Amino acid sequence: MDIRQLCENAGEASVKMAALSGEVKNNALLKISEALLANSKRIIEANQHDLERSEKDNLASPLLKRLKFDEKKLNDVVEGIKSLMSLEEPVGKTLFSNMLDDDLELFKVTCPIGVIGIIFESRPDALVQISTLCLKSGNCVLLKGGSEAKETNRVLTDVIEEATVAAGLPKGWISLLESRDDVSEMLKMDEYIDLVIPRGSNEFVRYIMDNSRIPVMGHADGICHVYVDSGADLEMAKKITVDSKTQYVAVCNATETLLVDSAVAKEFLPGLKAELDKKNVEIFGDEETAKIIEVKPASDKDWATEYLDYIISIKIVSGVDEAIKHINTYGSGHTDSIVTKDKTTAVKFMNLVDSGNVFWNASTRFSDGFKYGFGAEVGISTSKLHARGPVGLDGLLSYKYMLIGKGQIVDDYATNKRQFKHVKMNKQIEEI
Amino acid sequence: MDIRQLCENAGEASVKMAALSGEVKNNALLKISEALLANSKRIIEANQHDLERSEKDNLASPLLKRLKFDEKKLNDVVEGIKSLMSLEEPVGKTLFSNMLDDDLELFKVTCPIGVIGIIFESRPDALVQISTLCLKSGNCVLLKGGSEAKETNRVLTDVIEEATVAAGLPKGWISLLESRDDVSEMLKMDEYIDLVIPRGSNEFVRYIMDNSRIPVMGHADGICHVYVDSGADLEMAKKITVDSKTQYVAVCNATETLLVDSAVAKEFLPGLKAELDKKNVEIFGDEETAKIIEVKPASDKDWATEYLDYIISIKIVSGVDEAIKHINTYGSGHTDSIVTKDKTTAVKFMNLVDSGNVFWNASTRFSDGFKYGFGAEVGISTSKLHARGPVGLDGLLSYKYMLIGKGQIVDDYATNKRQFKHVKMNKQIEEI
Repeated sequence: MDIRQLCENAGEASVKMAALSGEVKNNALLKISEALLANSKRIIEANQHDLERSEKDNLASPLLKRLKFDEKKLNDVVEGIKSLMSLEEPVGKTLFSNMLDDDLELFKVTCPIGVIGIIFESRPDALVQISTLCLKSGNCVLLKGGSEAKETNRVLTDVIEEATVAAGLPKGWISLLESRDDVSEMLKMDEYIDLVIPRGSNEFVRYIMDNSRIPVMGHADGICHVYVDSGADLEMAKKITVDSKTQYVAVCNATETLLVDSAVAKEFLPGLKAELDKKNVEIFGDEETAKIIEVKPASDKDWATEYLDYIISIKIVSGVDEAIKHINTYGSGHTDSIVTKDKTTAVKFMNLVDSGNVFWNASTRFSDGFKYGFGAEVGISTSKLHARGPVGLDGLLSYKYMLIGKGQIVDDYATNKRQFKHVKMNKQIEEI
Repeated sequence: MDIRQLCENAGEASVKMAALSGEVKNNALLKISEALLANSKRIIEANQHDLERSEKDNLASPLLKRLKFDEKKLNDVVEGIKSLMSLEEPVGKTLFSNMLDDDLELFKVTCPIGVIGIIFESRPDALVQISTLCLKSGNCVLLKGGSEAKETNRVLTDVIEEATVAAGLPKGWISLLESRDDVSEMLKMDEYIDLVIPRGSNEFVRYIMDNSRIPVMGHADGICHVYVDSGADLEMAKKITVDSKTQYVAVCNATETLLVDSAVAKEFLPGLKAELDKKNVEIFGDEETAKIIEVKPASDKDWATEYLDYIISIKIVSGVDEAIKHINTYGSGHTDSIVTKDKTTAVKFMNLVDSGNVFWNASTRFSDGFKYGFGAEVGISTSKLHARGPVGLDGLLSYKYMLIGKGQIVDDYATNKRQFKHVKMNKQIEEI
């Protein structure tokens, strides 16, 4: 496959994608959902091949589960497309407008980023979610999925491409890369690709960052915390801790470390341990914790570990200040939650913890694009640039400044013939 | 100098900076302006040393002019600080709020990025502008100015640091790096520094990108265009072209290439040439242009050159579509302007030209943070990620998601005990 050609095609298509109306894009989304249902047999068969091959290759059973794309998953993604269609048109929105002088009006207007390369894991449903998010936001997309899912991904891409090009989208707006070499080639194409989103392990994200000039939106570890403050409702704290740790351990928003205010540790920990024991959670604790409940000794390494498993580390702290300091030292800027009845303490925690998602009296497991109401997400960003936290349509947009004049020149302002007025307007770009 | 220590200090200070109230920050800005005026003699003396040394070193005269920091420049930066104080507090603003379920409320709230490294050119007034923008937006800053200005920069940094720490800002929020080695060290500190903004040549920006894992916000060339459409008012087109090219040639928003619709080229070019001749502008033109006016022959290289001088290249195109294609091929995504009376053509141009600033009937020289009413700018970004176009306070901000619950857990939603409601609210975070 000629990757440069694919990238060039995507670059050319991106100009046309940027100019598509909301109606054309929503109609293309509708056509995708219809084509997916019409081709369900073909898709499920391809997935069957992927599953059989992966079973022979001894793929771990949780991964096999994620790889599976059946009738139910198909209906889920079709539902997802419908909810995406119902979201308001993201492109061409006026973010603000300023009158610089009489008849010289500035508009800040959303536009697509352009061409996005996305490297994702084994779930074929992710391919549909990501490509439809890119479509709705007017972006072109180069996709590379897990090799386990290659047949399913091939069919899904073909079905989506065919349906959308028939619906008026420019050919080349979506392409599937099929090998690691293709990815290496793509990473060199900084003249065509505006953004790479790698979904995968830390090492993988770092590898991408170190090997490309293209901006990367990726997430590092999810080392999430629950902090149980002296002012906590301890029943609530127990529920939130158990849910944050055990509701789904293999995901980045699962809690890895529990911080407990020393004032309530003796009262809180034994009851919590009983609950964690029921779920077979292994507990590592600091010395103070070990004085209260039976734990394995935790080392500094534990505070910096993303277990992604039925394991938790516990540290007793002197209060909210030490909790904040611990989180900002060892956390990964993902999601951290405080349990307390005290508003002042909660606000302090949310202001000073330097994470994309800071919660008060809620499970860390809520940090997710679907749960936030974004319709879908392309991933969760722990970067502080461009997009932070769950990334939905907004994170796939850029903006441009449009200035509408009547022949104004800068020389008139430099020579004081005219002065800037700088008056905020509430005008939309459609009103020019 | 121990750069790691400086970066660590900045990282620690950043937590405190993020929590400062607007009053404390505005008071610190006031104290800076007072301290600058009180220390004017000391500052101007230091600048005198820089000027004398640089003259001996045969620094080019435009650079000497930029280096000069006198009474007038001092008053200008003080005025700039006052206008910055009058801007609304940028941190802690609620961008949107969503009710996920009863008593489970999500807020997207602005916050500082954290620690920003800025490498800038010889103008000492840039140091004051950049550091006060960082202060207002709650960021810590590591500055590296041009070595020509080292004494002025040292005094300015000392004055700013002293005044602001006395006003309650955390020590370490501002630091000055003094050598290239310091910069190399800083580029390794991706654990402490969130963003690097290099202001300088293209090669320099690329060097930074290739040598650091820290995200970079920089601008590449400013290859800006004016396109004179068949529907243009040709008098207006002449004024705009002359201003865009000659009002200040050494800057990135000066026009480098003029595109002219073939339908009006014969009528337009002779009059334009007469005006450009008055300003001694050298003209390179394509073959079609050479049939109408006397020009040096332009090659493909001209279309991709940022002259930054009294030189312009001219190409005749068949209409707006070819103009758009030319700009998207050879332009740098900075600023491009169309002159036309036809709204449909203008809107097409603004939608399809993939640049941060797209103008209709206005000089390209308007693309600038001050002229846009942003108070000041740290630079102009040609990236499409995070910030695009002139970057003022907004570009120095990130955001975090704050979720306020009453003990909700995800398990209740996973087991269908509860359903998400996802209702948009108009609530501010202060109202919790």
